[in-house]
Amino acid sequence: MTGQKRAVILLSGGLDSATTLAMARDTGFACYCLTFRYGQRHDIEIASAKKVATALGTPEHRIIDIDLAAFGGSALTDLALEVPKNRENIESSACDKAIPVTYVPARNTIFLSYALAWAEVLGSFDIFIGVNATDYSGYPDCRPEFIEAFQTLANYATAAAQDGGKFTIHTPIIEMTKAQIIQTGTKLGIDYALTHSCYDPVNEKPCGKCDSCILRLKGFKKANLTDPVEYAD
Amino acid sequence: MTGQKRAVILLSGGLDSATTLAMARDTGFACYCLTFRYGQRHDIEIASAKKVATALGTPEHRIIDIDLAAFGGSALTDLALEVPKNRENIESSACDKAIPVTYVPARNTIFLSYALAWAEVLGSFDIFIGVNATDYSGYPDCRPEFIEAFQTLANYATAAAQDGGKFTIHTPIIEMTKAQIIQTGTKLGIDYALTHSCYDPVNEKPCGKCDSCILRLKGFKKANLTDPVEYAD
Repeated sequence: MTGQKRAVILLSGGLDSATTLAMARDTGFACYCLTFRYGQRHDIEIASAKKVATALGTPEHRIIDIDLAAFGGSALTDLALEVPKNRENIESSACDKAIPVTYVPARNTIFLSYALAWAEVLGSFDIFIGVNATDYSGYPDCRPEFIEAFQTLANYATAAAQDGGKFTIHTPIIEMTKAQIIQTGTKLGIDYALTHSCYDPVNEKPCGKCDSCILRLKGFKKANLTDPVEYAD
Repeated sequence: MTGQKRAVILLSGGLDSATTLAMARDTGFACYCLTFRYGQRHDIEIASAKKVATALGTPEHRIIDIDLAAFGGSALTDLALEVPKNRENIESSACDKAIPVTYVPARNTIFLSYALAWAEVLGSFDIFIGVNATDYSGYPDCRPEFIEAFQTLANYATAAAQDGGKFTIHTPIIEMTKAQIIQTGTKLGIDYALTHSCYDPVNEKPCGKCDSCILRLKGFKKANLTDPVEYAD
């Protein structure tokens, strides 16, 4: 395969994955974007993913339907469970290693598995995922140990690796704070108005009260920037 | 969780996974069966999976639609590629480590990821997959190293593992020959007429010429048993 090196980017439509995409692109990769409609209650994020992919220029953006809601077990896919609100101290509670009810069983394992399949077909050995420190305090599948274990697996799982290739799972924002992520993306020209972070939108607007909204709003505040999206209320 | 221990069994409808299910059941597990409609040209195997699951008694059989054909790259999902036929010497050619065109990129990684998600929701820590020696000569994601890497991943990927549980990926037939698999399943009472192994059926009947049919037929012959399915021609 000649020309620009290809990478597969997991793009949710949130600010973390949008920034990850911008960083991958900035390092010279042709960025093939992969988004999942997995039964999430906030599937408006898929529209955001499309806008972000278009704005940043992608050779191809695939949106894959997978039915994680069939298994249940998460407030993100099970409408019978409530998304926690107004937990202003989430960073410190995350340190208690309590796993949030918004955890979706094996979600990142499934996402990375699809990314691996597509990468192999594309002749790519580079996969980017926008996990970060704030998440991995709470979600097991956002931790560096998980990412390392997946990279090891990828290099056993594929014909491409058996033929001598070596997969790398890139996590460029894993050690950043939300403020640093926002500052980095802003420098790279991301319009964060295109992104969507809320777990539980109200009339398609972010609620401003779920863990994800709270972390986002705090991040913009610490970065001395204004979040360009319009919140409900 | 009280009562019988639960396991998730990857059930394709072929003889390997049917035997794996029978073995898991024989060791006392309540066997939750998971089958995928993944764009395979031989999707008649799904009907076989249903028959096998019913015959062996399962508390629940889930059939999940996933679109691996969208990525292409395999003769099993891409009708433009031909399924190899009449390779009577496949066991020895497999030793050359040539990966068959019927390899589906990252398929077992994706299957196991879904199994992990369901296991976590079910409160199960046991997943069974019917990979075996004859396959792992050719398919990278049938090798013991791959299975071990996935087991390691599972124990980083999940909230259940973070809470102290330990996942095991069981591969009871991995070291068996086809003949041994067939003998084992026969002792456990499997009706192999219910199973389907062919990659490229002709009018819903197995072709008798693809790698999978050839291995199956040789296995029955070596086991001194008659394959009860009716072949094309």
